[in-house]
Amino acid sequence: MKSIVAVTMSEAAGIGPEILLRAFRNGIIHEYCRPIAIGDKKVLEAVSSQLKIPMEYNVIEDVSRAEFRPGVMDLFDLDKIPLDRLKPGKPDAITGRAMLDYTRFAVQLFLDGKADGLVGGPHSKKAAEEAGEYFDGYPGLIAKITGSKYPFLMLCAGDRLRVTNVTLHISLRKALEIFTQDLVLNAIRETHRATKTFGIEKPRIAVAGLNPHAGEERMFGDEDVDIILPAVEKAVAEGIDAKGPFPADSLFYGCMDNGKYDAYVAMYHDQAHLPVKVLAFKSSSAVAIGIPVNWATVDHGCALDIAWQGIADPAVLEETIVLISKRAPTFRQNIATV
Amino acid sequence: MKSIVAVTMSEAAGIGPEILLRAFRNGIIHEYCRPIAIGDKKVLEAVSSQLKIPMEYNVIEDVSRAEFRPGVMDLFDLDKIPLDRLKPGKPDAITGRAMLDYTRFAVQLFLDGKADGLVGGPHSKKAAEEAGEYFDGYPGLIAKITGSKYPFLMLCAGDRLRVTNVTLHISLRKALEIFTQDLVLNAIRETHRATKTFGIEKPRIAVAGLNPHAGEERMFGDEDVDIILPAVEKAVAEGIDAKGPFPADSLFYGCMDNGKYDAYVAMYHDQAHLPVKVLAFKSSSAVAIGIPVNWATVDHGCALDIAWQGIADPAVLEETIVLISKRAPTFRQNIATV
Repeated sequence: MKSIVAVTMSEAAGIGPEILLRAFRNGIIHEYCRPIAIGDKKVLEAVSSQLKIPMEYNVIEDVSRAEFRPGVMDLFDLDKIPLDRLKPGKPDAITGRAMLDYTRFAVQLFLDGKADGLVGGPHSKKAAEEAGEYFDGYPGLIAKITGSKYPFLMLCAGDRLRVTNVTLHISLRKALEIFTQDLVLNAIRETHRATKTFGIEKPRIAVAGLNPHAGEERMFGDEDVDIILPAVEKAVAEGIDAKGPFPADSLFYGCMDNGKYDAYVAMYHDQAHLPVKVLAFKSSSAVAIGIPVNWATVDHGCALDIAWQGIADPAVLEETIVLISKRAPTFRQNIATV
Repeated sequence: MKSIVAVTMSEAAGIGPEILLRAFRNGIIHEYCRPIAIGDKKVLEAVSSQLKIPMEYNVIEDVSRAEFRPGVMDLFDLDKIPLDRLKPGKPDAITGRAMLDYTRFAVQLFLDGKADGLVGGPHSKKAAEEAGEYFDGYPGLIAKITGSKYPFLMLCAGDRLRVTNVTLHISLRKALEIFTQDLVLNAIRETHRATKTFGIEKPRIAVAGLNPHAGEERMFGDEDVDIILPAVEKAVAEGIDAKGPFPADSLFYGCMDNGKYDAYVAMYHDQAHLPVKVLAFKSSSAVAIGIPVNWATVDHGCALDIAWQGIADPAVLEETIVLISKRAPTFRQNIATV
């Protein structure tokens, strides 16, 4: 049987509803999984009618009632958004809270064993903040639910490139403040475990340096020697095949399918995102790791400037659903180690 | 007449001598310029004989005596290195000082109007330090000679991509400490002027943000709004076509030949180097800008691990010589503004 993957509508004022509809209509995802949707039926109907994307809905209260047919969306209708309050392109506290509610509902489905994988649509951080909740991305939110101590974001270009962010949505200054050996070591550990959940038995991990030329023997900073190197050494002592720190600028040349490393650990947001966006701008997903949930989201924003206009491309959402579908069996096998 | 371009041997214990010999033998560079070399004849002869790269030498004391024929190296023999003290792969104070001397000699040639462009071979920072001099790269060294206040390094992949480093060979922590509006503004100004010296009349410049998502409306740091944005605005008020700050991670997608920007300004070493090395690892040059000298070097190190082994590739040195040769006429035209 194909895995069951639940997909959230996420930020209603963005492109989330449109790409969700298109993905469920295209049928590509149905080749890889049995997909179900989590969102607001009224919003989806409005988008579907405005953009002329025909869709039938099978509103369900349990996964057992799903039909899994392209063109028919099996939907958990959480009914969170009064349609007359919703303005395309204008996320607010209501849409932000709805996004958070869809996410929590999805995570519960997974924890109850009713879904094998979860995919979040593109969200608005600002809307989540307006809803009065601290939100620094899906990994942190899900970690709070599951009580996981070390959530990280791993960017994946299918199975061709995996890059973990040691720090994520904080200023560079703040990233340096919270930069510790413990944090780097845990990022390496979680990268190791997560790469196993993708079916790689003995992941080979490359760790980037923080400073230019990985500090070049302390000429350009000490963190590479004092923080990253001992973290790599401890990981190796634990049996993890980790190497580094390497100068980050040359580390990513030819990194897609180079056969050398199965995953990379980068020290801050742009160091991780730059190579991925340069090499795989339109095909990368953001996998939440360090949590016992098979979750990923698209590696693009909710594109408020083109919301509800009929020109949003569901390709990245579809690739992310495929990624999570393929990971589902190996995730379950390796979940004990996560 | 083709431009006269002087090329230094640079770090003798690295691959510098070998790639210099190969470039002068291959003859590609002679199609674009009239090349002359600056280095140590004894070292070149030793490498040439050990690696079986035949070469005749025309030792000159003035450019007017040069013959400019492939296979014959017109050479300023500065004779700085006792051969019995030189160990391949082991730079020291002697080779470091020689590298600095070749550089100063080259700069003087340019300032005396005897060369139209200069290319430095790959150097060792450590050796320069051992020679007792502060050396943070060629731009700083040349700026000291010419009294220029704002030297920067611009990475160039031929004429397909240009990226200026606002800060360069210092730790990320230090980069944040010295990060000011004045520095960013001057980097934009020098990028504008340098791009003009490449023959682009009205350069369009994209400026990267410092923090994730360029700070996303102060959620992830304030420098993007408080430092970079006003610098961009001041540059625009001066008539420079600069835009930004843009999120750095997505800025460089499709940046080669995208027809949108002629140059990019990146805030620190890895942010500038990552996209260039990912996209043009084997064809990028490092141009010193903000100085009245037409100077570039190869964007790779002196490769001590393969020094004097006969496997070094002169391609990047050749491309850099071609770049500087092509720039020579437009550099002279625009030098008044530099």
